[in-house]
Amino acid sequence: MKVVVLVGGVGGARFLMGVKAALGLPAVGAPDGESTHEVVAVVNTGDDVWMHGLRICPDLDTCMYTLGGGIDTERGWGRAGESWTVKEELAAYGADPTWFGLGDRDIATHLVRSRMLRAGYPLSAVTEALCDRWRPGVRLLPMTDDRAETHVVVDDPETGERRAIHFQEWWVRHRAGLPAHAIVPVGAEEAKPAPGVVEAIASADAVLFAPSNPVVSVGTILAVPGVRQALRETPASVVGLSPIIADRPLRGMADACLDAIGVATTAEAVGRHYGSRKEGGVLDGWLVHEGDSADVPGVTVRAVPLLMSDVDATAEMARDALRLAGVWRD
Amino acid sequence: MKVVVLVGGVGGARFLMGVKAALGLPAVGAPDGESTHEVVAVVNTGDDVWMHGLRICPDLDTCMYTLGGGIDTERGWGRAGESWTVKEELAAYGADPTWFGLGDRDIATHLVRSRMLRAGYPLSAVTEALCDRWRPGVRLLPMTDDRAETHVVVDDPETGERRAIHFQEWWVRHRAGLPAHAIVPVGAEEAKPAPGVVEAIASADAVLFAPSNPVVSVGTILAVPGVRQALRETPASVVGLSPIIADRPLRGMADACLDAIGVATTAEAVGRHYGSRKEGGVLDGWLVHEGDSADVPGVTVRAVPLLMSDVDATAEMARDALRLAGVWRD
Repeated sequence: MKVVVLVGGVGGARFLMGVKAALGLPAVGAPDGESTHEVVAVVNTGDDVWMHGLRICPDLDTCMYTLGGGIDTERGWGRAGESWTVKEELAAYGADPTWFGLGDRDIATHLVRSRMLRAGYPLSAVTEALCDRWRPGVRLLPMTDDRAETHVVVDDPETGERRAIHFQEWWVRHRAGLPAHAIVPVGAEEAKPAPGVVEAIASADAVLFAPSNPVVSVGTILAVPGVRQALRETPASVVGLSPIIADRPLRGMADACLDAIGVATTAEAVGRHYGSRKEGGVLDGWLVHEGDSADVPGVTVRAVPLLMSDVDATAEMARDALRLAGVWRD
Repeated sequence: MKVVVLVGGVGGARFLMGVKAALGLPAVGAPDGESTHEVVAVVNTGDDVWMHGLRICPDLDTCMYTLGGGIDTERGWGRAGESWTVKEELAAYGADPTWFGLGDRDIATHLVRSRMLRAGYPLSAVTEALCDRWRPGVRLLPMTDDRAETHVVVDDPETGERRAIHFQEWWVRHRAGLPAHAIVPVGAEEAKPAPGVVEAIASADAVLFAPSNPVVSVGTILAVPGVRQALRETPASVVGLSPIIADRPLRGMADACLDAIGVATTAEAVGRHYGSRKEGGVLDGWLVHEGDSADVPGVTVRAVPLLMSDVDATAEMARDALRLAGVWRD
């Protein structure tokens, strides 16, 4: 079975572990031998940013480290056993920004990536090269090799002036605390899906949306021209998992993002925002958490447990999604 | 008094401490108030190299860290209390080169520098910005803002083919153990002295050559067009200190470099290699170690202790050089 999953960072990475486990693959790392199952992750790159001359791809790295066994499992992002020497030294130089968590181990990844990008390799090739080391056991595809960065329109807290800041500045520095007037994937309209993205969706047995942020993770992937069309044309069913449980985000600050685009923080509103493939949207099925309900016209909705408390629970979520997609037989 | 010193890395940095101490300046750091004395270091940048996408300037950094109090005094280069996490991680990615000592603290310097260079700042401006933090108490000028990298022509140990490798590869990786057929400052002929270099030499009360490598440190500085002319035209006396003591290099592997250019490893041969200002060379005076002797036509030679065993001994060397330059009155 070939399963394609649209993912963001921490939540997406955890969901991918569940998908792998559901298919009998090791949750972390690559299988010893061949497997008849294949998981392809289409990863949001809208959070990517140049900082201190380094290209940082938070979601790709979170997926790579999580599935490759290098993640700090407590924090959910960055490397286990991380140290922060370079960050402290950069601050001693007064080099901005100082608010971004740039670990020493992590920096090596960014150095390898930045050097390859500057040498002309596309991000997809760079990611493949980095995965030679990490062996995540899924194919990690950036949504695009082009620059499509999420910016957030806010009122500058000092000047009051309305301006767009990079998503990372809004999310990490301001903890999404500045009201967002708009969230804009800058450059997305001229981006193309990375090689393999459209092909993977077209040849999938099922396409899943991880319970990732519907605006700045899955939403950004959908903003890349060609992705929506691929989703509408694939013979596979497309099933999403709600990141909103009891009208609150599962994790992170998705409510602030939903506010910005005028969508309510409910499983139903997010399902309707994605919409039915029959009506110009992208979903066939929508999984909401047990106890929640949603009426999404043209979309089959099921309520099942959606807490990714451990790999087993997450694998069961993945199986529920694959059941709804019609490709899982118990 | 304004003293201009041509320097390389470790030996040059130590000599600068002595020059500062001789003038009553703190050997490390900047004076609290104003001083009537000024030290300008013209620093070799021929060893500079791009590695892992970072611009590394070994001699500038050694001078900056030594005079700014950040140097690992045991090792002579790199930062005190250094860690090597990024280097280990780069090796885990199989990223070449792995033989270069790239410390975590040091990397922050390279990140700040590389980012500024890519933004279009010249190396001299970058160096000034880095020195805002380190306050070395001397003005550190790169010999040039242009790329002029020392390459060494060797027989490849694997293929036997004759080829040019970067000085760092020869010096650090091969410990200067591959016979050098030639040492070439690539790009030097098109380089210009950095802003302030010619002016500093022209307005100096004395110009000193630190006991640095006469081929790949002082020699590279002299290879920048305009520097020799400035040295010949300055009203100040130019005095060199021999890095060769009892026919051996004071430190490092200067003999391998001298071999490559066909100069004997003796204080006399190096003095003659620099030559007299009266005869198209660059020296007025030449200090050799006590017990050594040298006959350098047109150059006044003195034998004095030249071991930089501590700051006091080095300060006395500096005073001896200033005496020979005619600007030190006891």
